[in-house]
Amino acid sequence: MKSTEKILLGHGSGGTLSHELISNVFVKYFANDVLNRQTDSAILTMEGGHLAFTTDSYVVDPIFFQGGNIGKLAVCGTVNDLAVSGAIPKYLSCGFIIEEGFALSDLEIIVKTMADEARNAGVMIVTGDTKIVNKGKCDKIFINTAGVGVLDVSRKNISYGTGIRPGDKIIVNGTIGDHGIAILAARESLSFQAEIQSDCAALNQLIEACFSVSPNIRFMRDATRGGIATVLCELAENRNVGITIDENKLPVKDMVKGTCEVFGFDPLYLANEGKVVMVVGAGDAALVLNEMKKHPLGKDAVIIGEITNAYPAKVLMHTEVGGRRIVDMLAGEMLPRIC
Amino acid sequence: MKSTEKILLGHGSGGTLSHELISNVFVKYFANDVLNRQTDSAILTMEGGHLAFTTDSYVVDPIFFQGGNIGKLAVCGTVNDLAVSGAIPKYLSCGFIIEEGFALSDLEIIVKTMADEARNAGVMIVTGDTKIVNKGKCDKIFINTAGVGVLDVSRKNISYGTGIRPGDKIIVNGTIGDHGIAILAARESLSFQAEIQSDCAALNQLIEACFSVSPNIRFMRDATRGGIATVLCELAENRNVGITIDENKLPVKDMVKGTCEVFGFDPLYLANEGKVVMVVGAGDAALVLNEMKKHPLGKDAVIIGEITNAYPAKVLMHTEVGGRRIVDMLAGEMLPRIC
Repeated sequence: MKSTEKILLGHGSGGTLSHELISNVFVKYFANDVLNRQTDSAILTMEGGHLAFTTDSYVVDPIFFQGGNIGKLAVCGTVNDLAVSGAIPKYLSCGFIIEEGFALSDLEIIVKTMADEARNAGVMIVTGDTKIVNKGKCDKIFINTAGVGVLDVSRKNISYGTGIRPGDKIIVNGTIGDHGIAILAARESLSFQAEIQSDCAALNQLIEACFSVSPNIRFMRDATRGGIATVLCELAENRNVGITIDENKLPVKDMVKGTCEVFGFDPLYLANEGKVVMVVGAGDAALVLNEMKKHPLGKDAVIIGEITNAYPAKVLMHTEVGGRRIVDMLAGEMLPRIC
Repeated sequence: MKSTEKILLGHGSGGTLSHELISNVFVKYFANDVLNRQTDSAILTMEGGHLAFTTDSYVVDPIFFQGGNIGKLAVCGTVNDLAVSGAIPKYLSCGFIIEEGFALSDLEIIVKTMADEARNAGVMIVTGDTKIVNKGKCDKIFINTAGVGVLDVSRKNISYGTGIRPGDKIIVNGTIGDHGIAILAARESLSFQAEIQSDCAALNQLIEACFSVSPNIRFMRDATRGGIATVLCELAENRNVGITIDENKLPVKDMVKGTCEVFGFDPLYLANEGKVVMVVGAGDAALVLNEMKKHPLGKDAVIIGEITNAYPAKVLMHTEVGGRRIVDMLAGEMLPRIC
């Protein structure tokens, strides 16, 4: 950008400054045949069948943290919502709400990250919108992404989990709570903040690798706000099945565990931005686990538990000290603005 | 909502309060077969072909105004972006960013309005997201909607305007600037605020009525931020054609004209939220105009000008006093947070 180094209200006017911002930042990085035409709606060509459609807004604070920034979250989060429904993510929209006075150089870093992540995940950012609000009327920048993916008919029940049955194994692709603690560390300027990275990543390629070895993936959900506890509680309740997990199988980094003890958090409820909870037919569980472990985003994958007949609609955890406890839904809020 | 009358941070946690908010507000009003399943991604069945995909965030201030509220804008704006591309709007997502302490009763009014508008426009709200930010970190409520529509192959170039040619007529479906002045009046508590209503409306049914009488609709754009001037300037520039309009044909309410004179605004640049600029083959212009006039949203429709060979990439206005002036893109910002 030539004329200014800060975002001005005029950048949201729809007039000349808006055009300048679109050309010099958004189109510069997101450039693709669809977006470049700059029509109100992106025009896409799709085959008929099932589509997945999802949206998330990102309001994370701080906007830059170890392992990512708000733009990386906004792309990966929506890609993951599509991928866990069994869809191949294809197209993203993005809506920016920016505070007057925001540094254009920071916007450029965020937009470049989004472009890089979209390219890596194999999705196109095809349409967008920018609104500028007066100084003090939002906190730096909020980003919404919506996504469209193509869903093979054989996978159309995965997001509902209607195919799960007792004995199915529950797999997580790596350590839990990293994102939550990375944000906490950045926010509180904790001394170890350089050592713990957010796990923010697009999981669609890992998930496709799993599909390539097994037709018996019966449910997936990415464990974001509310952590894996929330995913498991919702699944148990919605499908009226029991779930048992083993605390000593849960992959938690020592640094995360230690910080949880200090702050009184439970890793089960901490946010993740690159973790999928996958329910797989027992016969294929080892195969899928093995495939996951080959992928950089799945090298710490483990089977953490299984679906049971006992205790319908409940999640039961065998604790490290040999007891058992019910895992409940999160009440209240552990860490606001985590994503 | 039983437990509380204000939005709490916990409503954005992904835990029990989030579930309560989703069930008691969003699902209550938006209820439909797709949304009710509450999966991360909505699963849609579509025929193959062209799709239109668009997004807009809404940050209007104030959130309630004569003729609508932020929720009505969020549905109508995205429906209109799809409709002007020639698509039949089908599905919307919505992402809410809400300030801690926001009144739940206000949220309910907004959500109910969105549900009503979606029903009237024939679209389904199928997926959503809610983020809560600490008090003071956003201004009451921001809403993003993304939309998916089905686009017949015969209409796939309408949003580009590649079919326009000299002699084509330019039609607007009614008075311009009403939304801009309604927001200004509400914001400044002007004495006449009850008398001027925003034109906020979903235009898809009006537009389909026009298609039913003519295959020669060659370009459409809804004139929102930046007004009809911005739409015409972009079209002239992108297609390298000249455009002439007649100032004395421009439909402007006396109250809007008067307020513009007082505040130094130009109705050409004022925002509209229910106005389409339509370019129609000369032979069909009277037919389309007549069809528009039969519709409540088009009763004040007029032909305001035409596409010409002269002055490529420029918009020329014959003024009321008999002169001519170039209409330029909006520089700076007339009214921030107009939508």
